[in-house]
Amino acid sequence: MSWFYPILFATETQTANPSLVLAGVLLSLVIIYFASKLGGELCSRINLPAVLGELVGGVVIGISALKLLVFPEGGLEATDSLIIQFLQATANLNPGESGLVFESMSEVISVLSELGVIILLFEIGLESDLKELIKVGPSAAIVAVVGVSAPFALGTAGLVYLFGLPVIPSVFAGAALTATSIGITAKVLAELGKLSSTEGQIIIGAAVLDDILGIIVLAVVGSLVKTGEIQVNQIIILIISAGTFLVGTILIGRLISPALVGLVNQMKTRGEVLITGIVFAFILAYVANIIQLEGILGAFAAGLVLAETDKRKELEEQIIPVADLFVPIFFVCVGARTDLGVLNPAIPSNREGLIIASFLIVVAIVGKVVAGFTIFGKPEINKLAIGVGMVPRGEVGLVFAGVGSASGALSPATEAAIIVMVIATTFVAPPLLKLVFKDEVIEKVESEAK
Amino acid sequence: MSWFYPILFATETQTANPSLVLAGVLLSLVIIYFASKLGGELCSRINLPAVLGELVGGVVIGISALKLLVFPEGGLEATDSLIIQFLQATANLNPGESGLVFESMSEVISVLSELGVIILLFEIGLESDLKELIKVGPSAAIVAVVGVSAPFALGTAGLVYLFGLPVIPSVFAGAALTATSIGITAKVLAELGKLSSTEGQIIIGAAVLDDILGIIVLAVVGSLVKTGEIQVNQIIILIISAGTFLVGTILIGRLISPALVGLVNQMKTRGEVLITGIVFAFILAYVANIIQLEGILGAFAAGLVLAETDKRKELEEQIIPVADLFVPIFFVCVGARTDLGVLNPAIPSNREGLIIASFLIVVAIVGKVVAGFTIFGKPEINKLAIGVGMVPRGEVGLVFAGVGSASGALSPATEAAIIVMVIATTFVAPPLLKLVFKDEVIEKVESEAK
Repeated sequence: MSWFYPILFATETQTANPSLVLAGVLLSLVIIYFASKLGGELCSRINLPAVLGELVGGVVIGISALKLLVFPEGGLEATDSLIIQFLQATANLNPGESGLVFESMSEVISVLSELGVIILLFEIGLESDLKELIKVGPSAAIVAVVGVSAPFALGTAGLVYLFGLPVIPSVFAGAALTATSIGITAKVLAELGKLSSTEGQIIIGAAVLDDILGIIVLAVVGSLVKTGEIQVNQIIILIISAGTFLVGTILIGRLISPALVGLVNQMKTRGEVLITGIVFAFILAYVANIIQLEGILGAFAAGLVLAETDKRKELEEQIIPVADLFVPIFFVCVGARTDLGVLNPAIPSNREGLIIASFLIVVAIVGKVVAGFTIFGKPEINKLAIGVGMVPRGEVGLVFAGVGSASGALSPATEAAIIVMVIATTFVAPPLLKLVFKDEVIEKVESEAK
Repeated sequence: MSWFYPILFATETQTANPSLVLAGVLLSLVIIYFASKLGGELCSRINLPAVLGELVGGVVIGISALKLLVFPEGGLEATDSLIIQFLQATANLNPGESGLVFESMSEVISVLSELGVIILLFEIGLESDLKELIKVGPSAAIVAVVGVSAPFALGTAGLVYLFGLPVIPSVFAGAALTATSIGITAKVLAELGKLSSTEGQIIIGAAVLDDILGIIVLAVVGSLVKTGEIQVNQIIILIISAGTFLVGTILIGRLISPALVGLVNQMKTRGEVLITGIVFAFILAYVANIIQLEGILGAFAAGLVLAETDKRKELEEQIIPVADLFVPIFFVCVGARTDLGVLNPAIPSNREGLIIASFLIVVAIVGKVVAGFTIFGKPEINKLAIGVGMVPRGEVGLVFAGVGSASGALSPATEAAIIVMVIATTFVAPPLLKLVFKDEVIEKVESEAK
């Protein structure tokens, strides 16, 4: 009944009315779920991955189209949000307060979306097989290294020699081509039932490594732009902490997981398995976050460790409804934040960006597909699928664009080109991945028929 | 990777670093789950309801003790939060930014806790039986009306005549005695397996009605204090909208639920039942919220309506893990926000409040127990249990204390007395309820043995 406060006795505070924030969050979630289900159902009916529908659903309700779900970034304000306008019309939100409510509800939705991708990676970890991942480790490592260096080298060189851009922005744009977005790939693989296939595990392994490589590349490029030189110490610390984290969590996790299972078996209250699993995932996500890795890596490691216990099945079953609620928030928000305005060729300033973008898209796809073909000695493997699986750059590429732009290293055209590249690779990968895996299924059926 | 932003290129913005907010939320959730499980497990071992343990766990980590989980209210700042200090020590949070991070993460946890009680009431609605509720409706209505008017009249009269307080603060304190906290009662009933008993349904029905009556009482008292007169129009609108909402949602809900089920049956993507149910609950919660009722009433109505469809079982199963994750956040936050400082008799200024509080506690319990005994013609019913079930006042009473204090109508002693009353009734009700229902079980066993 906290809403009564401001209605009866308006006080001058700097915090937003909690009841209006709650109303805004409820409304945002309703719209997010509508968009995700509408998009997901439409896509699954025309035989495309549902996650593509969630992304497109997000685009439709986001900054590019309906502006139902927008975030206070890129100069957007409360007045740009249709949800805020709706709250003003229906919930007695007065315009003076709308800025605070807009910021608070956007903050909540952003965190929910981050929790969504953390829970997704926890679920992916649970469905992965540590032994299989270790077995494919060397292949995954080669794919990751080639998949980071090939697009980086090709992209940087191309921008310098073909487009005549200065070195710094070229290095930045090249770096933006490196890191795969694990979330989108993993979700598509799960939808296709290919997550536990050898290809699936190589893709996931390579994507995890390549996420870490991407973070290191960003640190290198970032310090290069900021100070003009590479801070070797910082980079070494990052590499050591990343390695220690991945190996350490899995080793320590395997040591303590029997005690964890023992503890859970002692518990009598509701939700003991799920809560323990989630707490474990959140702790590792927190640790990953504070040592400057990504939280999702911690959640993935937690899933991997718990997948080896005898609680795996129970945990997998219980995480499904939770993931069903949280994960769409992430994908819809990625779509909603995507500004398709940079794609409009009618705006003259976009044209230069679009030309650079076409080049970056080609390099982004070719670089990763080439990486897939570096796997040798395994003729039965669908190498094309592995390369395609690494294509989506998602939010990681956008961080490069944002950091580059904030540092002044990137011209608006180059920044727009990076964003277009991210949009294209993210949206093109799900249907492509479905296609290359479908070919494989057909081949298999044909070869079995012979 | 959004954390890279401020580390590489610190920008001067008014929004908190999203990565640090996420880290703070992860840490808060880990602590909340620890407290809820530790408290819940301990309580269930000494045969007390687990929810009491969650409340106590919240008190231990909250403002009264460890200060791990505190909120920016009552003059508390970022420096009071141990989580913020921990973030400063481990996650490179600089003191200048900590205020923003503290506010943002508290906002997120508050909304998650509100979503927790919304999901709890949705689950309670799903487990309730509309036909049974309608059958017990007249009994529930009597219990609600007596349960609101008896403590209101007794409390107000007692404060005026026994304690010589002025009329306005007496009316306020009396009004704070009216509304039951549905959440705590419903959770204890569910834990005892008594939710679908006749007693359980009368308690839930009465608590829902009495929540609405409480809102009306608050509006009456609030406008009385604010303008010196009762704004009859506002009250009439509130009564009409509350009635229309409850009857309307259930009638319209029953009309559209077959279409909703048909729609769900057409869906092919994951989580179709759960998402549709949650969206329905969130929409009704939103509507309840904007017509100045409580969101939980909407969620309860949504659960009631969907309980009548053939998706009930599936929905009940899928909501369990979601509720397991969200609901503890609510109870732990209620505990964490409870300031036991007002209970310390060593502080002289608390003594007057504690004396008034003792009186209020007696009235609060007696008033509701009397209400339980107004049910007649049903000798087989455990009337004591019904009265006890209405005892916890929870957050509703705290809103009265807060509104009264903000309006200047309440002296610090009276405000503290209301808070003590809320604490006592909230914490005493779960074990009492277990006790009165246990007697019944024993009686039943004995009478069956005869």
